[in-house]
Amino acid sequence: MSLLVVGSVAFDAIETPFGKTDKIIGGAATYISLAASYFRKPVNLVAVVGDDFPAADIRTMQEHGVNTDGLQIKAGEKSFFWSGRYHNDLNSRDTLVTELNVLANFDPVIPDSYQNCDYLMLGNLTPDVQRTVIQRLKRRPKLIVMDTMNFWMDIALDSLKETIKLVDVLTINDEEARQLSGEYSLVKAARKIMGMGPKYLVIKKGEHGALLFHNDQVFYAPALPLEEVFDPTGAGDSFAGGFIGYLARTGDLSFENMKNAVIIGSTMASFCVEAFGPERLLKIDQKAISNRSQAFLNLTACDLTLV
Amino acid sequence: MSLLVVGSVAFDAIETPFGKTDKIIGGAATYISLAASYFRKPVNLVAVVGDDFPAADIRTMQEHGVNTDGLQIKAGEKSFFWSGRYHNDLNSRDTLVTELNVLANFDPVIPDSYQNCDYLMLGNLTPDVQRTVIQRLKRRPKLIVMDTMNFWMDIALDSLKETIKLVDVLTINDEEARQLSGEYSLVKAARKIMGMGPKYLVIKKGEHGALLFHNDQVFYAPALPLEEVFDPTGAGDSFAGGFIGYLARTGDLSFENMKNAVIIGSTMASFCVEAFGPERLLKIDQKAISNRSQAFLNLTACDLTLV
Repeated sequence: MSLLVVGSVAFDAIETPFGKTDKIIGGAATYISLAASYFRKPVNLVAVVGDDFPAADIRTMQEHGVNTDGLQIKAGEKSFFWSGRYHNDLNSRDTLVTELNVLANFDPVIPDSYQNCDYLMLGNLTPDVQRTVIQRLKRRPKLIVMDTMNFWMDIALDSLKETIKLVDVLTINDEEARQLSGEYSLVKAARKIMGMGPKYLVIKKGEHGALLFHNDQVFYAPALPLEEVFDPTGAGDSFAGGFIGYLARTGDLSFENMKNAVIIGSTMASFCVEAFGPERLLKIDQKAISNRSQAFLNLTACDLTLV
Repeated sequence: MSLLVVGSVAFDAIETPFGKTDKIIGGAATYISLAASYFRKPVNLVAVVGDDFPAADIRTMQEHGVNTDGLQIKAGEKSFFWSGRYHNDLNSRDTLVTELNVLANFDPVIPDSYQNCDYLMLGNLTPDVQRTVIQRLKRRPKLIVMDTMNFWMDIALDSLKETIKLVDVLTINDEEARQLSGEYSLVKAARKIMGMGPKYLVIKKGEHGALLFHNDQVFYAPALPLEEVFDPTGAGDSFAGGFIGYLARTGDLSFENMKNAVIIGSTMASFCVEAFGPERLLKIDQKAISNRSQAFLNLTACDLTLV
């Protein structure tokens, strides 16, 4: 079941209460691809960088099973750069620098070898670009998952809604669900958003876990309480990568299996936050994934018998 | 297994985005007793009110199985009164009025018929009074559960720590756990707080559910996403009432059964928020409790098989 991931590949500079980094590799598609690679290879990547992007980092992605035929390298241009500082509670952050650079005119080209993809993950990008990707696929994938953020709700709501109409699963956080729907209750918000097109809605709540909605069904995967959270950057993207990677591996789009995918997504996010940037995602093995997923299952295991 | 509940019985006046009440009955012990009464009767109540407290409301509590022999009625004095206004998100509130009245000199008298209690629930009160109750019991209960709040951490930390030393289970919210421990990570916070005495710690996270810690074990009961949350007043107390009521009914203090008690506590809290004050708690039946608890179990049910 071939998997296509579209999104930013970029430089980040991150400050948390525990330290700061120079420019390290980041970007939604980087986290998504690495997380997904533990479940489904190759991960076909469509993205754009400048010629300042290190060849060694591209090789690292290739070694993890990421196919970079769709990664455009723009000569004489610079890669997207984001810099942010997290507050003490790690739940909020200030953006210090955003340099769009190559992302300003990103024209996503789909290599022929990527056509006939079954699973499409649209990482956070301009909704116009996300829609263009869907239009450039000759056959609609079995499943389209889309991530987005409040920024596009603020400045490109109409385009965002056009794209949302076309996807199967939307992943946003709780504040974004409230903003997009105008409803405070997440149950009502989910109903309204599913009325905009997606059959499934994932609401990401950071340290409070994630909710999956489908029709009148709901599933809640709490986040694992962690001893140390080092850097939340990329947690939502790692979730998305684990989620779609697991679905692409199993090929089962039932609600029951979507629940499994949410646990796997939560598992990958829990690894991501344990180190700066994508560092931790580069060094996981199947045993660690299995143990961590089991910890998620144990967390809510309860044998209450009702009288 | 006899159950003793100590706490405030009071008047509240509540404003939420959905409406406001005149003075209605409230108080931690009112919510705790009513919630517990669905699992274990009688609920032996120790509290104090003024002679302005309506006899009809005392009768209502009696009809729900609350033994009011330990309810002092102070002639010529007024009952504790609290008034608050919730913000739009219902997660935060401003206190408008606090009139301690009879609570200012509350001297908790334990009727002889309440001695030999097996389960003691200390609702939120001055930690001095909570400790006095423990000292006035001739035999230590099998289980002492204590609720408290940030207010006492601010103004009576030493006394609070003295009382915490004496209890088995402490229930506080996430911000309070961070304040009491000085740790942001809830895992580290829980370890420090359990080092202060309690073998179990329940961290209440409102719309994000509740965590139960014991040694190195942790259980997470998410909150049920609700269509309407009308009034959060008393949710934490209803949780405590369901929690200790279920333990008093089953008499099983294993970690596994504590998990069940957390689900039952969450169930009672989810009813509480559906109407103003304790109104909804007065009108539940066993079938509703059973259905709602099942909804909690379904919320996290997942058949992920790890490879």
